[in-house]
Amino acid sequence: MVNKIALSTIERIDMNQATTNECVKAEAVATSLHGLETPCLVLDAARMERNVARLRTRLGDLGVALRPHLKTGKSVEVARRVMDSPRGPATVSTLKEAALFAAAGVRDMIYAVGIAPTKIAQVLALRAEGVDLAVVLDTVEQAEAVAAASREAGTAIPALIEIDCDGHRSGVLPTDKAALLGIGRALEQGASLRGVLTHAGGSYAARGAEALRQCAEDERRAVVAAATILREAGLPCPVVSMGSTPTAHSATDLAGVTEVRAGVFVFFDLVMAGIGVCRIDDIALSVMATVIGHQRDKGWILVDAGWMAMSQDRGTSKQAVNQGYGVVCDITGKPYPDLIVADANQEHGIITVRPGSSGTLPDLAIGDRVRILPNHACATGAQHHRYHVVRGADSTVEAEWPRFSGW
Amino acid sequence: MVNKIALSTIERIDMNQATTNECVKAEAVATSLHGLETPCLVLDAARMERNVARLRTRLGDLGVALRPHLKTGKSVEVARRVMDSPRGPATVSTLKEAALFAAAGVRDMIYAVGIAPTKIAQVLALRAEGVDLAVVLDTVEQAEAVAAASREAGTAIPALIEIDCDGHRSGVLPTDKAALLGIGRALEQGASLRGVLTHAGGSYAARGAEALRQCAEDERRAVVAAATILREAGLPCPVVSMGSTPTAHSATDLAGVTEVRAGVFVFFDLVMAGIGVCRIDDIALSVMATVIGHQRDKGWILVDAGWMAMSQDRGTSKQAVNQGYGVVCDITGKPYPDLIVADANQEHGIITVRPGSSGTLPDLAIGDRVRILPNHACATGAQHHRYHVVRGADSTVEAEWPRFSGW
Repeated sequence: MVNKIALSTIERIDMNQATTNECVKAEAVATSLHGLETPCLVLDAARMERNVARLRTRLGDLGVALRPHLKTGKSVEVARRVMDSPRGPATVSTLKEAALFAAAGVRDMIYAVGIAPTKIAQVLALRAEGVDLAVVLDTVEQAEAVAAASREAGTAIPALIEIDCDGHRSGVLPTDKAALLGIGRALEQGASLRGVLTHAGGSYAARGAEALRQCAEDERRAVVAAATILREAGLPCPVVSMGSTPTAHSATDLAGVTEVRAGVFVFFDLVMAGIGVCRIDDIALSVMATVIGHQRDKGWILVDAGWMAMSQDRGTSKQAVNQGYGVVCDITGKPYPDLIVADANQEHGIITVRPGSSGTLPDLAIGDRVRILPNHACATGAQHHRYHVVRGADSTVEAEWPRFSGW
Repeated sequence: MVNKIALSTIERIDMNQATTNECVKAEAVATSLHGLETPCLVLDAARMERNVARLRTRLGDLGVALRPHLKTGKSVEVARRVMDSPRGPATVSTLKEAALFAAAGVRDMIYAVGIAPTKIAQVLALRAEGVDLAVVLDTVEQAEAVAAASREAGTAIPALIEIDCDGHRSGVLPTDKAALLGIGRALEQGASLRGVLTHAGGSYAARGAEALRQCAEDERRAVVAAATILREAGLPCPVVSMGSTPTAHSATDLAGVTEVRAGVFVFFDLVMAGIGVCRIDDIALSVMATVIGHQRDKGWILVDAGWMAMSQDRGTSKQAVNQGYGVVCDITGKPYPDLIVADANQEHGIITVRPGSSGTLPDLAIGDRVRILPNHACATGAQHHRYHVVRGADSTVEAEWPRFSGW
């Protein structure tokens, strides 16, 4: 009961915040990037729309549904632009996302992090409000807890068994028939086995189109094999869910798969560009910053976006091109050649030319604005409360969209 | 004008959020850690109070004032426990911090990130409300902008010249007499030269008590030398401000210094323990998480605290002991031997025994709770909206304190 109260209170806080943020928009939204205070998060709607259309077309051609992961945007406005309909389907990474998107009308969600028994009450509360929220698990203990809670509530909670397709995180091996059947049968004692789900997290380390295609095929084979084991044992398995942005953009055959999940495809980022699934000029998210100083003898420009604004994600540090804390663009979003945020403190970013490159430091004065492309859109977005929406190189701010964080 | 409106609107949002958070406390606060949902931020008030008393006593013995940096806590409740009085003095890293702490009664602050010209209007707005907010700068351009805005507003904005004591970030070299006098004289055309300020960021890389003491002495000498140059030229320099948690805890002589700034000392963290300025059991901040799975053949325990809850700070990766994403403790805050969060995804943490150690994996079942000590308290705290306050090993939650984020 405490859980249920806490959840609805948290919901109210965030809806309050969203509402108050809307007041900002009505009252004092800047009409141009030049009028905004920095650091702030800028979203290029034209790039976002192009990114969404690209994956939709691709999956449509392959004949599978898209269940976008809303953890990247954490915004009702962004969610509405990536989902097929305002009701979903969608994927979430926290129950707070589930509650807030439910309040905005989303009715078909998978909470794609292994369920903790104490969280089942919150799942039931959302289901009681008419939300088809499914959970994910990979142990008999979790399946028994979900089944017991289902019996007690008199409603079958749907659950997907997580499959480990590449050894990078959670999940049952697709060859582990005993575990699959044990979990499936435990669920069927009151809960509902909805299917299998996997995520090729290992694809982030793949290099080259053929390696990515192979990751996608391995992911597909793993999850389809698990579905086959369950079905051959007479268990239901209507949903066969796979996905990651790299594999969603690289799969050439999705036979046996019913849906693909992906999150970061909506904005893309430098890690995705480094993997090769997008170009730098597909990246829709950036952090606008202001020049606050120079160390001219060192070739440094200091800006007011440090790791608090960029996040500490250094995902490109293991890639062929290390982008530091981000690639520096002018205020229209056009990258300066070889200019990166090489180091960062909490509220300071240090811009330099990439070591070993032929780039030259641009002539930026105190007060000039830049936009910095992030390594990881999910991580950078999470540091901000709102998106300032622009369209292409036009610096007109066409909207301000709230985003939420926390649990 | 837009700036001023935007600032007060942001203030209202956050005060609203704080107020609504207070409702959570009144309505549904869990009385025990066992009743909280995870991941969540736990603050051990006994450790915090001991940490604050330790630095206060130390600086009292050295005869200098403490100007705590409120960026670590980003909380009115924490601020009141680190400041000498509810009015300050204090240091802030953003103008949002300045505005929110001003609304809570703080009247003496330094905004310790180089001022951008577009932000001066916000500084003036806070000063007009009776807040003695000083700015920091290191260029003649900034000094001229602050002086011009002061003249226009008919009020002298106080500014401190940032001194570069160790080459790690911003600031004028303490030997650069021309720059110091140029900035000082530009300020005196309408603004007010309040003094000099430095931060020994390089101390984070120092190893051993003697190296730390030397960092503190270098920091002191740099800022006192700059003050001397200004005073000898007939310019005022009432404030001589230095500080970082490592040097504040290592200085043995602060002659010529008027105040010390430090932030992370209030909570401490694994980076500070690695440097040697605190022990693991001084760390007051932790993230509570729930076990959501196992990969037994790999020796992994999965929990629901990933990098979103811990931050991606990997500050201990360059230290003698790499603590991964954090040190794992039981729910009372006692560390398990050699147990760390070795890897993390957005909402998943992977707990393992430290590679090469003799630790053994504890027998933790699905649903069990752990507490994870962070690498960097400022970064981890920033991922959360509230502190759940406990005292020592007692799992009773004695309060819930809101914290804010963003700009």
